[in-house]
Amino acid sequence: MQTDLTKTLGIDLPIFAFSHCRDVVAAVTKAGGMGSLGAAWMTPEELEMSLDWIEQRVEGKPFSVDLVFPGTGGEDVEKTPEEYRKLIPKEHLNFVKNLLDEAGIADISDADRDAYLVEYARKMAMTHKKSREQLEIVLSRKSVNFIVGALGVTPEWVTKEAHSKGVKVGALVGNAKHAAKQRAAGVDVLVAQGTEAGGSVGNIASMVLWPQVVDAAEGIPVLAAGGVTRGSQILAALALGCQGVWMGSLWLGTAESDLSIEMREKLFAAVSEDARLSKAMTGKQGRMLYTKYVDAWHRPDSPKPLDWPMQSIMNGYPFKRAERGRNLDYWTYSVGQAVGDMNEHTTVKSEIERMLNEYVEAVDKLQSVTSY
Amino acid sequence: MQTDLTKTLGIDLPIFAFSHCRDVVAAVTKAGGMGSLGAAWMTPEELEMSLDWIEQRVEGKPFSVDLVFPGTGGEDVEKTPEEYRKLIPKEHLNFVKNLLDEAGIADISDADRDAYLVEYARKMAMTHKKSREQLEIVLSRKSVNFIVGALGVTPEWVTKEAHSKGVKVGALVGNAKHAAKQRAAGVDVLVAQGTEAGGSVGNIASMVLWPQVVDAAEGIPVLAAGGVTRGSQILAALALGCQGVWMGSLWLGTAESDLSIEMREKLFAAVSEDARLSKAMTGKQGRMLYTKYVDAWHRPDSPKPLDWPMQSIMNGYPFKRAERGRNLDYWTYSVGQAVGDMNEHTTVKSEIERMLNEYVEAVDKLQSVTSY
Repeated sequence: MQTDLTKTLGIDLPIFAFSHCRDVVAAVTKAGGMGSLGAAWMTPEELEMSLDWIEQRVEGKPFSVDLVFPGTGGEDVEKTPEEYRKLIPKEHLNFVKNLLDEAGIADISDADRDAYLVEYARKMAMTHKKSREQLEIVLSRKSVNFIVGALGVTPEWVTKEAHSKGVKVGALVGNAKHAAKQRAAGVDVLVAQGTEAGGSVGNIASMVLWPQVVDAAEGIPVLAAGGVTRGSQILAALALGCQGVWMGSLWLGTAESDLSIEMREKLFAAVSEDARLSKAMTGKQGRMLYTKYVDAWHRPDSPKPLDWPMQSIMNGYPFKRAERGRNLDYWTYSVGQAVGDMNEHTTVKSEIERMLNEYVEAVDKLQSVTSY
Repeated sequence: MQTDLTKTLGIDLPIFAFSHCRDVVAAVTKAGGMGSLGAAWMTPEELEMSLDWIEQRVEGKPFSVDLVFPGTGGEDVEKTPEEYRKLIPKEHLNFVKNLLDEAGIADISDADRDAYLVEYARKMAMTHKKSREQLEIVLSRKSVNFIVGALGVTPEWVTKEAHSKGVKVGALVGNAKHAAKQRAAGVDVLVAQGTEAGGSVGNIASMVLWPQVVDAAEGIPVLAAGGVTRGSQILAALALGCQGVWMGSLWLGTAESDLSIEMREKLFAAVSEDARLSKAMTGKQGRMLYTKYVDAWHRPDSPKPLDWPMQSIMNGYPFKRAERGRNLDYWTYSVGQAVGDMNEHTTVKSEIERMLNEYVEAVDKLQSVTSY
């Protein structure tokens, strides 16, 4: 199961786990794969604490951090969280207020609403300054030997600084054109993310996309993302020329996840068709659990979702209100079509063991079919 | 490369080719795969002629026919083509008339328009009577040992009559629930069609869908459809537990295809993102080349596409007018995301040779990665 990339990074299994949750990152890394901490929303203090926490648990094994480099879309003029909050149109706040009122969800005070909006702005508005601070923290850790960036072409200062510390740089891509651009920008690894993935995604499905990105990569390693929950899919990814899989959704159902039990159970009940594309969550196209809240943004008379990151910030109000009211129909979560294969509470360890067993079984079956 | 299914059907390669074009069906079958003639739109006379034509070329090799069994959606009350034509709302005909007028495409006479609409109604309106006639013709041929049905659960009379002649029955499915229903209805083979495929499709991508259908199939063979153009994808399909691939789009670019050269060249120029989901073509969700014509149906002020089969029939007017005016921006064609991998004029033989070479190469590479 070793590929050139697992050898380069010094890990045992070609399984990469994206998670916002440090426990998942630590558990996957300990099990022989590589966790990648989704750190874009973290303050410097949160990031330092999370890295400490992971390092104390992975017994010296290397792990990864996932950041957002705002590229050309990034803002050089710093706005305060309060300034972001004030930019949210009344129309959108009224729309979600009425929506949650009609659903009988108790409102929160204006002061609480504004506090949540400011909190979300602090987390979700990306600036070059924030990216630089985060990168500096990450690159100061010896245990991080791989960073991955999303949203736009990786800036030159990122690859330069990372390479100077011997850290490899990966980038998420959704089509062959972006893959070629990232390669030209000096990226070391491409994460080809099919449309079936959760979160920000393009439109090309994994089966078509992965080999297109392998072609465009011209030799640099490609990780396969989008739809993977099974050992047979790891084998398929290798058959398509990828050097490992990049998984996000599956970990949401593990004991190590910090997702609420109620939301987990909503995910377990969902079929793959329930993970749909929408701009309701961030303003960019993403795949998420299709709830009443998401649906409301698709009505002909609804306002157009705000541009990223304003929609993410605005959602601080309805999401926190729905959470307090314990009504998850007016919340949602980024998840891929993999959700149809997630049906029960598990652990990181048991999921990795299951996939390894399935992988071995798939290899055996394939051997009996192929000509070797 | 032999699977249980290729052995059952008596073919050499696990490559199944859906095509409306008898030349493609014959060429794939001759090359060791199995062509499947898309015959749903054919009159009894056309079907007989096509079957004769194929039989004269395949040297006794078995091939397949693809039919539509209208299932519960089928009409028992026969309408004449003229009656269908009269049911098309003026609103829709005016909408497309204005659209093509604005594009400067010469109009055709009312008599010609009505004649095309009647022709399309004759082809595209499915009834139980038409299905029965087609099935009878197909089952009278010794060389057809596999029929495949689309749209709804396969009726009992179909499986019963086919099985009495020793013919296997397949069914296209887009999720695990439909797979289980088809299996319960006595179908022998499931064709799991990912959303990246052309034509009528569901929303689940191949990477997620194929293994879900393999699970739901409980042992009956599954063919992998949606996105396949490469040998490495055939290997991936086998790794995911499928017993072969079902391909449609790729053949549109071959010399054997009867698609116009102009339209082929539009396909060659397209990237995978240009094959999009829309109801513009048939009234059911399908994937097709996204042209100005398709786009027009997605404007907020456009009429809602008619229900199937009325939208297909209505399209007889704009499509024939655009064809006569040689303006393919106001036409479209069913094609999958595979379109991004189709870049030049080829032949069936060269495409199959290419895929076999790629398959061998992919097997070799996979062997060096997997532990065997």
